[in-house]
Amino acid sequence: MSVNEQTAVNEPSDASRAARKKVKHGIIDCDVHPIPKSMDQIRQYLPKFWKERFRGGGRGLFYGNPSHGMRQDSLPPDGGPAGSDPGFMRKQLLEANNIKTAILIPRENSCQFPDLDYGNAIASAYNEWIADTWIGPDDNHDGIFKSSIVINHSDPASAAKEIDRWAGHKHFIQVTTDSGARFLMGHRNFHPIFEACSRHHLPLALHPGLDGIGINILPSPGNPSHYIEWHTCMSLSFQAHLVSLLTEGTFERFPDLRIVLVEGSSTWLVPLMWRLDMEYKALRHEIPWVKKMPSEYLRDHVRITSQPLERPNNDEDFMDMLRMMDAEHLLMFSSDYPHWDFDNPKSAFPKLPEKLYNRIFFENAEEFYGL
Amino acid sequence: MSVNEQTAVNEPSDASRAARKKVKHGIIDCDVHPIPKSMDQIRQYLPKFWKERFRGGGRGLFYGNPSHGMRQDSLPPDGGPAGSDPGFMRKQLLEANNIKTAILIPRENSCQFPDLDYGNAIASAYNEWIADTWIGPDDNHDGIFKSSIVINHSDPASAAKEIDRWAGHKHFIQVTTDSGARFLMGHRNFHPIFEACSRHHLPLALHPGLDGIGINILPSPGNPSHYIEWHTCMSLSFQAHLVSLLTEGTFERFPDLRIVLVEGSSTWLVPLMWRLDMEYKALRHEIPWVKKMPSEYLRDHVRITSQPLERPNNDEDFMDMLRMMDAEHLLMFSSDYPHWDFDNPKSAFPKLPEKLYNRIFFENAEEFYGL
Repeated sequence: MSVNEQTAVNEPSDASRAARKKVKHGIIDCDVHPIPKSMDQIRQYLPKFWKERFRGGGRGLFYGNPSHGMRQDSLPPDGGPAGSDPGFMRKQLLEANNIKTAILIPRENSCQFPDLDYGNAIASAYNEWIADTWIGPDDNHDGIFKSSIVINHSDPASAAKEIDRWAGHKHFIQVTTDSGARFLMGHRNFHPIFEACSRHHLPLALHPGLDGIGINILPSPGNPSHYIEWHTCMSLSFQAHLVSLLTEGTFERFPDLRIVLVEGSSTWLVPLMWRLDMEYKALRHEIPWVKKMPSEYLRDHVRITSQPLERPNNDEDFMDMLRMMDAEHLLMFSSDYPHWDFDNPKSAFPKLPEKLYNRIFFENAEEFYGL
Repeated sequence: MSVNEQTAVNEPSDASRAARKKVKHGIIDCDVHPIPKSMDQIRQYLPKFWKERFRGGGRGLFYGNPSHGMRQDSLPPDGGPAGSDPGFMRKQLLEANNIKTAILIPRENSCQFPDLDYGNAIASAYNEWIADTWIGPDDNHDGIFKSSIVINHSDPASAAKEIDRWAGHKHFIQVTTDSGARFLMGHRNFHPIFEACSRHHLPLALHPGLDGIGINILPSPGNPSHYIEWHTCMSLSFQAHLVSLLTEGTFERFPDLRIVLVEGSSTWLVPLMWRLDMEYKALRHEIPWVKKMPSEYLRDHVRITSQPLERPNNDEDFMDMLRMMDAEHLLMFSSDYPHWDFDNPKSAFPKLPEKLYNRIFFENAEEFYGL
């Protein structure tokens, strides 16, 4: 029975008269949400500069590319997003550029969720998809695609199980995860992952992503305001992770562990190792588990991929830097296809001496991955 | 009257008998604090490795030097901590090393407090102390000491007033603050400070400190575990601050603003500027307020001090790096006296050509500070 029905039946008291009067007075609801039918309703009011960048919803909260994130010619002619058609990728990337092996780094976004089981499920789903399609018999009869096992590093014990699950597959040749994390990579929290990688002789590839997103901490020592700032400073988290791995003594504890630094740029390695070696000379008593100069661990344990390649105007400076960073042993070519800042193997580098070209463009990777 | 006295006087009821029984049952207090008489009481139980590092209390929470933070020969013979006696500093640092001008950077620790007024008061107190002693007539009759105005950058409007207050003093020649902050330095939050510096033609010197302390955000994209890791990665926050200043268009908005990067190391400038210039070529439409290549702003607006100087084994590599970083125009010598990692002007650098020596050891600073 509603309040109105009740008052119609009984003679109203003074109190119920007052209540009835209140009921007739309209209610005020202090929290109601109007939703645009489409983001264009908002976009029409934005100044021109922002019109095409505005994405609405949760998207674009973190450092979306202001124009486009993909090579604009990389959309497969048979439909689907860039990088989604193995056949078209073979033509556009592999055949056109004489690439004999493509190491896939699925971009999975599984590490930023507070619900670790959700992240684990996403990582597993990506691996099953990769195993079924990209490196399955239909799309990979010649074994040209090798892939990385995706893990959710926010749950290291479960990540180790995911590695165990796929490690026997002949086309899964490394493990990958994102540089965005709650801990720097040398943190002992990650030991179950390092144990699993060591157990199966699989390198662990760090790739930028998820920095500052969800449960992860800031992408650099402060929040960048713009994409260019975030994109330039992606290299900072790679520097911090590498210093962490070296100073925590990770490679003494896990002598079979090998790390690949993917898409975090590369030439910062020179000043950083100068600096860390110098600090080690003065402060090695603080970290007695580190048995030799930090830079001496690199050849046995660390590789770095080339894209995005910083290239100054002066090629001689660049060649000097390649020598100083031991590119001959540490650097492995990468294109980042189909992303917008793709490095073309024909033009990304200045002309290299044949020996160095061979090291960077295939020998280092052949040796490192046992291809 | 206590409960016990009361029950002695009156015949007890059943209820009071029960209460009396309860009273006799001892109370349990679940939060009581035992305090060591001295930290030695704890220290005696620590393994040898930790015995001398343990400091107790709140100290050492963040990255204390594991042995000693000061040159051990820098304690003034007449007492007081290292760096506290202008007369002794004149002898040990200035006369012994032919230093004609010492630019003081008081280490103030005013920016990490949630209570902004407290931080402001500390900054002001430091400036009054400096004005009264180090650069006052008694200690500075020959004007050999120049100082920096200390500000609390966490309260930019008040910091600007503090700059206004001291800017007329002939021996205050720059403003200083810490790299640890809640915002990257190009953030518009800091505009009042930039306006004040510009108004008085005073450079703003960023010095490491307070990263991750109090209200400030993390020192690098993760919490370093050890001093060596933190100390190596101090350079990361300088890289992030410089990229922020350049991409926010700070030097277009404040054409008279000049920034000095102090003790954040230096050679990282080369790969970082290669990278930022390259990104600018692709992404400049995102930051149309930046009118030229980011690296082109450096000569007019940025200087970098030399200590701690990364020095590789190969002097030729180092000389190449000095050339690539435009040390001839950007680098200014600094010793960091009396800190443990003091760079001796006689030995920090390899032998430099005279012209470059003059630029780095005095000409750049003379021109920049108008000395």
